[in-house]
Amino acid sequence: MAGVGVYRTGIAANWIDYNGHLRDAYYGLILSHGIDALMERIGLDAPYRTRTGCTLYTLEMHIHYLREVKGDASVSAEVRILGVDRKRIHAAFDLMVDGHDQPAACAEAMLLHVQQAPAASSQPFPPEIAAAIAALQRSTATLPQSRFGSRQMQLPQG
Amino acid sequence: MAGVGVYRTGIAANWIDYNGHLRDAYYGLILSHGIDALMERIGLDAPYRTRTGCTLYTLEMHIHYLREVKGDASVSAEVRILGVDRKRIHAAFDLMVDGHDQPAACAEAMLLHVQQAPAASSQPFPPEIAAAIAALQRSTATLPQSRFGSRQMQLPQG
Repeated sequence: MAGVGVYRTGIAANWIDYNGHLRDAYYGLILSHGIDALMERIGLDAPYRTRTGCTLYTLEMHIHYLREVKGDASVSAEVRILGVDRKRIHAAFDLMVDGHDQPAACAEAMLLHVQQAPAASSQPFPPEIAAAIAALQRSTATLPQSRFGSRQMQLPQG
Repeated sequence: MAGVGVYRTGIAANWIDYNGHLRDAYYGLILSHGIDALMERIGLDAPYRTRTGCTLYTLEMHIHYLREVKGDASVSAEVRILGVDRKRIHAAFDLMVDGHDQPAACAEAMLLHVQQAPAASSQPFPPEIAAAIAALQRSTATLPQSRFGSRQMQLPQG
């Protein structure tokens, strides 16, 4: 357990590619639904979004694909809060497959609080949301960190 | 033009999320199809995969989401080869929206040549594939580089 479980799903048939396993992009879709579930958990839910016109935008995501996932798997997304400032959340996600104790993928995302209208503009979190993020950060701070974080990719030179 | 165009698509209705724009994961799906198109281009096509049992696995992907994409957009993926070794390709992708000269997303991916059976194992590229990759690398080497590459994400501390 490297994070708080926020989302569970099976694997849809059309998520399997010609290699016979979960297409890379659908790891990302599961993690994207994990971000939605994180939003629910910290109060950025549909009523909040309707009331305030604010939501989260994903600025960056870095995924490490560590293991193949087959079509009969049940998977879950676990989240840790790595950092937060007035407007941004830096979160880590592990994609876990039932029956395996090591993640099939590890990811980091940078998320920005945005008011969408009249033109998209970043906005500070209101106090109650900031408090909920801080509480989740405290509860996940002591969990083991993944070795697979965001980084500069580079092949050995020469 | 920051790369060689390899894939074009419209936006499917179910790719639009509750924020009214392309969900983050579907940028990844378009890029994933861009990887497929890159494979076709360098000879790692379906006949090759059937004959050799070899394919590409995505090891890592880092995406920067730079601009919203709406449901009526037509988009394309452009690729540059940043590096290659005996078994791996380090590629950059730009996701371009028709009518805009700046990318809506920039990404880097690390791709590994794998023989899938009997157990997945990395394999060197055969000479003709290595030559095709080298040719594509030469033809994209002088194109302008994106400012948005893979990197360690971190919020300012304290």
